[in-house]
Amino acid sequence: MKTGEMKINWVSRYMPLLNEISREFSGKRPLEGVTVGMSIHLEAKTAYLALTLAKLGAKVVVTGSNPLSTQDDVAEALRKKGITVYAKRTHDEDVYRQNLMKVLDERPDFIIDDGGDLTVIAHTERTDVLENLKGVSEETTTGVKRLKALEKSGKLKVPVVAVNDSKMKFLFDNRYGTGQSTWDAIMRNTNLLIAGKRVVVAGYGWCGRGIALRASGLGAKVIVTEVDPVRAVEAIMDGFEVMPMKEAVKLADFVVTATGNTDVLTEEDILSLKDGAVLANAGHFNVEIPVETLERLAVEKFEARPNVTGYVLKNGKTVFLLAEGRLVNLAAGDGHPIEIMDLSFALQTFAILYLLENHASMEPRVYTLPPEVDEKVAMMKLKSMNVRIDSLTEKQRRYLESWQ
Amino acid sequence: MKTGEMKINWVSRYMPLLNEISREFSGKRPLEGVTVGMSIHLEAKTAYLALTLAKLGAKVVVTGSNPLSTQDDVAEALRKKGITVYAKRTHDEDVYRQNLMKVLDERPDFIIDDGGDLTVIAHTERTDVLENLKGVSEETTTGVKRLKALEKSGKLKVPVVAVNDSKMKFLFDNRYGTGQSTWDAIMRNTNLLIAGKRVVVAGYGWCGRGIALRASGLGAKVIVTEVDPVRAVEAIMDGFEVMPMKEAVKLADFVVTATGNTDVLTEEDILSLKDGAVLANAGHFNVEIPVETLERLAVEKFEARPNVTGYVLKNGKTVFLLAEGRLVNLAAGDGHPIEIMDLSFALQTFAILYLLENHASMEPRVYTLPPEVDEKVAMMKLKSMNVRIDSLTEKQRRYLESWQ
Amino acid sequence: MKTGEMKINWVSRYMPLLNEISREFSGKRPLEGVTVGMSIHLEAKTAYLALTLAKLGAKVVVTGSNPLSTQDDVAEALRKKGITVYAKRTHDEDVYRQNLMKVLDERPDFIIDDGGDLTVIAHTERTDVLENLKGVSEETTTGVKRLKALEKSGKLKVPVVAVNDSKMKFLFDNRYGTGQSTWDAIMRNTNLLIAGKRVVVAGYGWCGRGIALRASGLGAKVIVTEVDPVRAVEAIMDGFEVMPMKEAVKLADFVVTATGNTDVLTEEDILSLKDGAVLANAGHFNVEIPVETLERLAVEKFEARPNVTGYVLKNGKTVFLLAEGRLVNLAAGDGHPIEIMDLSFALQTFAILYLLENHASMEPRVYTLPPEVDEKVAMMKLKSMNVRIDSLTEKQRRYLESWQ
Amino acid sequence: MKTGEMKINWVSRYMPLLNEISREFSGKRPLEGVTVGMSIHLEAKTAYLALTLAKLGAKVVVTGSNPLSTQDDVAEALRKKGITVYAKRTHDEDVYRQNLMKVLDERPDFIIDDGGDLTVIAHTERTDVLENLKGVSEETTTGVKRLKALEKSGKLKVPVVAVNDSKMKFLFDNRYGTGQSTWDAIMRNTNLLIAGKRVVVAGYGWCGRGIALRASGLGAKVIVTEVDPVRAVEAIMDGFEVMPMKEAVKLADFVVTATGNTDVLTEEDILSLKDGAVLANAGHFNVEIPVETLERLAVEKFEARPNVTGYVLKNGKTVFLLAEGRLVNLAAGDGHPIEIMDLSFALQTFAILYLLENHASMEPRVYTLPPEVDEKVAMMKLKSMNVRIDSLTEKQRRYLESWQ
Repeated sequence: MKTGEMKINWVSRYMPLLNEISREFSGKRPLEGVTVGMSIHLEAKTAYLALTLAKLGAKVVVTGSNPLSTQDDVAEALRKKGITVYAKRTHDEDVYRQNLMKVLDERPDFIIDDGGDLTVIAHTERTDVLENLKGVSEETTTGVKRLKALEKSGKLKVPVVAVNDSKMKFLFDNRYGTGQSTWDAIMRNTNLLIAGKRVVVAGYGWCGRGIALRASGLGAKVIVTEVDPVRAVEAIMDGFEVMPMKEAVKLADFVVTATGNTDVLTEEDILSLKDGAVLANAGHFNVEIPVETLERLAVEKFEARPNVTGYVLKNGKTVFLLAEGRLVNLAAGDGHPIEIMDLSFALQTFAILYLLENHASMEPRVYTLPPEVDEKVAMMKLKSMNVRIDSLTEKQRRYLESWQ
Repeated sequence: MKTGEMKINWVSRYMPLLNEISREFSGKRPLEGVTVGMSIHLEAKTAYLALTLAKLGAKVVVTGSNPLSTQDDVAEALRKKGITVYAKRTHDEDVYRQNLMKVLDERPDFIIDDGGDLTVIAHTERTDVLENLKGVSEETTTGVKRLKALEKSGKLKVPVVAVNDSKMKFLFDNRYGTGQSTWDAIMRNTNLLIAGKRVVVAGYGWCGRGIALRASGLGAKVIVTEVDPVRAVEAIMDGFEVMPMKEAVKLADFVVTATGNTDVLTEEDILSLKDGAVLANAGHFNVEIPVETLERLAVEKFEARPNVTGYVLKNGKTVFLLAEGRLVNLAAGDGHPIEIMDLSFALQTFAILYLLENHASMEPRVYTLPPEVDEKVAMMKLKSMNVRIDSLTEKQRRYLESWQ
Repeated sequence: MKTGEMKINWVSRYMPLLNEISREFSGKRPLEGVTVGMSIHLEAKTAYLALTLAKLGAKVVVTGSNPLSTQDDVAEALRKKGITVYAKRTHDEDVYRQNLMKVLDERPDFIIDDGGDLTVIAHTERTDVLENLKGVSEETTTGVKRLKALEKSGKLKVPVVAVNDSKMKFLFDNRYGTGQSTWDAIMRNTNLLIAGKRVVVAGYGWCGRGIALRASGLGAKVIVTEVDPVRAVEAIMDGFEVMPMKEAVKLADFVVTATGNTDVLTEEDILSLKDGAVLANAGHFNVEIPVETLERLAVEKFEARPNVTGYVLKNGKTVFLLAEGRLVNLAAGDGHPIEIMDLSFALQTFAILYLLENHASMEPRVYTLPPEVDEKVAMMKLKSMNVRIDSLTEKQRRYLESWQ
Repeated sequence: MKTGEMKINWVSRYMPLLNEISREFSGKRPLEGVTVGMSIHLEAKTAYLALTLAKLGAKVVVTGSNPLSTQDDVAEALRKKGITVYAKRTHDEDVYRQNLMKVLDERPDFIIDDGGDLTVIAHTERTDVLENLKGVSEETTTGVKRLKALEKSGKLKVPVVAVNDSKMKFLFDNRYGTGQSTWDAIMRNTNLLIAGKRVVVAGYGWCGRGIALRASGLGAKVIVTEVDPVRAVEAIMDGFEVMPMKEAVKLADFVVTATGNTDVLTEEDILSLKDGAVLANAGHFNVEIPVETLERLAVEKFEARPNVTGYVLKNGKTVFLLAEGRLVNLAAGDGHPIEIMDLSFALQTFAILYLLENHASMEPRVYTLPPEVDEKVAMMKLKSMNVRIDSLTEKQRRYLESWQ
């Protein structure tokens, strides 16, 4: 069997929700006649989402959401299964953008976006596709931020479902998914011990707290940096240190960024790092760690291990950057654990079905899926684990509604 | 020194936010001429809130929010410091209610409520006080639920600030406060080992997750029961077992309720408990554990230790109930840790100041304090701990707002 | 029912091993005709050990191992049940010593000691009792250290069983027992928040690591001080900070000592403490925290709460000492959890039975109980929890013994 | 740069103890004229140990301790640096054994062994080498068990230093090393979520508790199986479930073996596994999980991912075996973290120096290094982390020695 097919087979065993959805809608094919354009980190799990949508009747057109995250063997396997794929792992930004364009050329009814690139292009260079576009489902914190900014600027033209804002997404994907996969990637690429080390986590949002939690679970001492005072107090009460980045860098064995923002480290911060410090980004784009500043401060740059770049700084210290500052769990690992993506992709699928049914009456705004969808996904997950829960008695329901 | 005064002195050392507020407003006395009616668990920390409000100029009138939670020595010390106190630890519900009435007789401008009793009475039996009442600040999850039900029924007549819904309240008080104080109370009253035991936590809201977190931190195996599937999945991913109460009771060494609901255990559940099982309530009222059902199933009832009642059930097993099913951390302990209440009471104080300034333009609805208040309280807390945090650079602020 | 009796009844429910031993030996009365002198912290659990030994036939004579740890109501209840008790809570050291003497006056065959006081007196002032004394069972790390020093000096005259050195003792009593009961005592006496605080644990032996583990489980950041480099590295890998006490005191919200040594804090250390810092001892004697140094440095001393003494230092800062520097879990709490003492007391009972059977052939040395006793106690504990475990197959047994 | 050299360069940055030893002995070359035969998992870290011994003057001859754990690029790089290497990754057991023989052909003065293979051969087929052999340093629990059995049988002919029994080895390598690297390997090879899963850990020795600790830190619910009742009680108090394997397999998502024994799962156990269960061995040899039983029970066997073999059982369920049942962290990962091996290899180096100095007066027994070596290694580690610790005052030293 080819490796791409093998990979997809493997993930299919641990995605019970997508399998359940396929079973549930097997006869109905609700997406018949619908074109879904997907911009994703193309690997086995996202491939299985594409296949699931195809089973529901959709024509699925896939491209990568990042020039380096496409796994070519998986792309090949997807093509063999009849999905249109415009994606190739490449360092060439032009090729990457051309592939985004090719997806838009298919005039999708719906877009599944990861980071908002495809949607932003549809609203700028390629407004021709807006005519046919009925809705967008966006998965990431960063993408949602961008599309909310687009909405705020008055330029958003189609309804967007912010899958990221569903509880079954951000409580699990951002926290447990990022938490595990970030450390998986750091460990496998460095072979360094985590226990007893000082890990600086920049940002204590859902991603950051997952990273901090797992670092602590691996025996590290965690230092959190934040700009939000409420989150800072929370980090302290969770047992972590909080301090400004300026001080934190002096202590760090690892710095992991998850702010969703740019330039998390200043030039001064980089020069304050200890010799041998390791930097990794688990936020979204490769702007969190300012790679160009690193390059500028370096007198030498070398490949230390695959996915590990060494920078000999002008002050004589060497620091290491993982995955060129890109999302470390995707660019230097296998991304989120399979079962986590199963939750997120169940939501994605329901988001498309929701948009299909409701788009006519929806305004061009950023929406969150109704809580019933979260509950449905959660119940499916519990069922897949053979876990049963209680339900309110009639007396309890009345009690909750009373005020006397 | 008298014990009441000693207790207040002690807490005053560990409430830096109330002290800071007193300093900040020392000259201005913004509450001059204002009467604040407080229904609280009257002990040293709430007493210090009353004193702080008095320092801000208010006339403060205090009663208990629970017939058994008043500490008489603290009440005495408060009186000596010029606060009007209508409160006495008592088993007599009539006395308790008469004291609530006496507070209303003072025709308060604002009410600080704990559980909503005072506010509900003002809207039913004592509507005469509504004329002068300008607003209510309610602290608890349960109280907020009641007042939202009151609002929904169309009967709410004054604006209510749901302090419970402020992040600096529920993220800390409900989670870390309840978490610690519940186990403090269980340990001190039973002297039982927690490590290696099975603890059933009913409800995985903020209180429940604090209780589960600390149980786990003390070495217990935690089983969570829930009615909300999203929370159930979260509990599982947090490393806990989830099952229906019916099964959980068979394994439980301890059952701790934090549902905010009634009748968390059925008759069948109680009879399924193991011999020696210990029951405690850390939710709000003594309805979570159905005491009357216990009484009915018992062939003998005895005091096993102070605050511990033994019930010999008709099936021959003996189970133990802490604090008669009342809030175990208050009725059989000292309530939340001091520093936690400092956060909540800073919010309470700001809630009164907020209502004072804005009540004229507020509708009779349940409001949450604006996020700036959370941020202010959080910054005060960080400052009191000598913790500094980062702030966004101009470039970062612009980055967050952009969508390109 | 009297409180002493009530307390003993309560603990009897949660000491399944002592109950099992009573059942097992109910008919045989192996200690018939034997006098056992016990020096113990006299409270409900130790009382139940005395009663168990009496059920096995022994004449039991009890005194306190610490002038302040005797609970008079329990002593009274024990007397009513026919045990000879020479113990009274007292601040008078003479009374305390007279009681020790009275136990020796009974010419015990065996001594159960806690800290080694009774045994040391028998080897110095009261060598008259050595003639009849057949063996000693000592429970604590400190006591064992003293008796090993006595052995090393060539002056030990009877065989000693170091119960402390049995796995079923030090792995559980010192770690989980001290860990839980220390924080129980600190929380109940101070009502302070543990989460987010800095806790300095002096000493990373079994007690120290239990204290550190539970502090961390309650949300604190732990700093360990050590003199042993191996333990220091272990503390670091366990996720804790390690630094010299001189630096640690500057950061400490709580300092908890568990070194088994004296003068853990210097004068300079005390003056470096933060205003409001809390000191507690969870080691053995009240020499770990140098109380006399505190007294000397103080310009004022006051009772801040029961069991909490405030010292206003000459530098203007106030620090608080719990339980006068005595063992905080005993002097200001209820001691170890019941189930933990059940393990330790099962070992104590087996130690006496072991000495009874083997003393004639034992030299005057410090012995550890054979591993079979640990295994027996562990199997009893597992059985009491309805836990079954695997056993080696014949093939596995052979595999372990082979070298090919 | 070649990959082998790159790998060695990388680890050299994070092995401060080996670097410190090289510096300390740079001029003296204490191993001049000495031949050291090493049987190791040949990868970058062990290569760096070989290079360190060479820097101390030794002639080093290296072979693999496992047919599949040799990394050929590292072997190549070692050869370039002048080390004699007889090792190649191979599935051919004959080639593997021939390489062991070639090392013995060099008539080593000392052997560094991993699992005891080389030493056992020297005592059976190749007794000719015993004449020149002066001592052995053995690193693993399993190897030490074998060599102790050899000693017990009266056939051991040279002194053996059981490096495994040094605190700085088993407290760190077995616990934190195995703990981290096992989960690193499982995660990277499966991409499965750990949080919320049930992990069965067979064996609660130092390896097992490291595996359990990290599983828990990654959010799993841990079930421990044991044959030792004391360890079983400890696992319970650490918050884990304990049950017989027969029951555990029914619940397991992952089974990780670390018993040091054979046939940890029976045929019945394998058939009781859930569909999709994953099996991994983190003990020593590939006998813990009975691969031949799996093969016999399977109706189909397939490669599911690299290092993951799927077995379709006759009952229709599919279970997955990692790394063919070999040590998962070595055969399907990069072995222990670098800094952990730095500790173990510092001990190995000191063991050779100790044997060099003392072998003439040592009997053919299994020895543990004196505690001073542990302390020296620990102090070196602390120094490398810039951590200082306290030391006993003269008064404290005397206090510890006194018994009065």
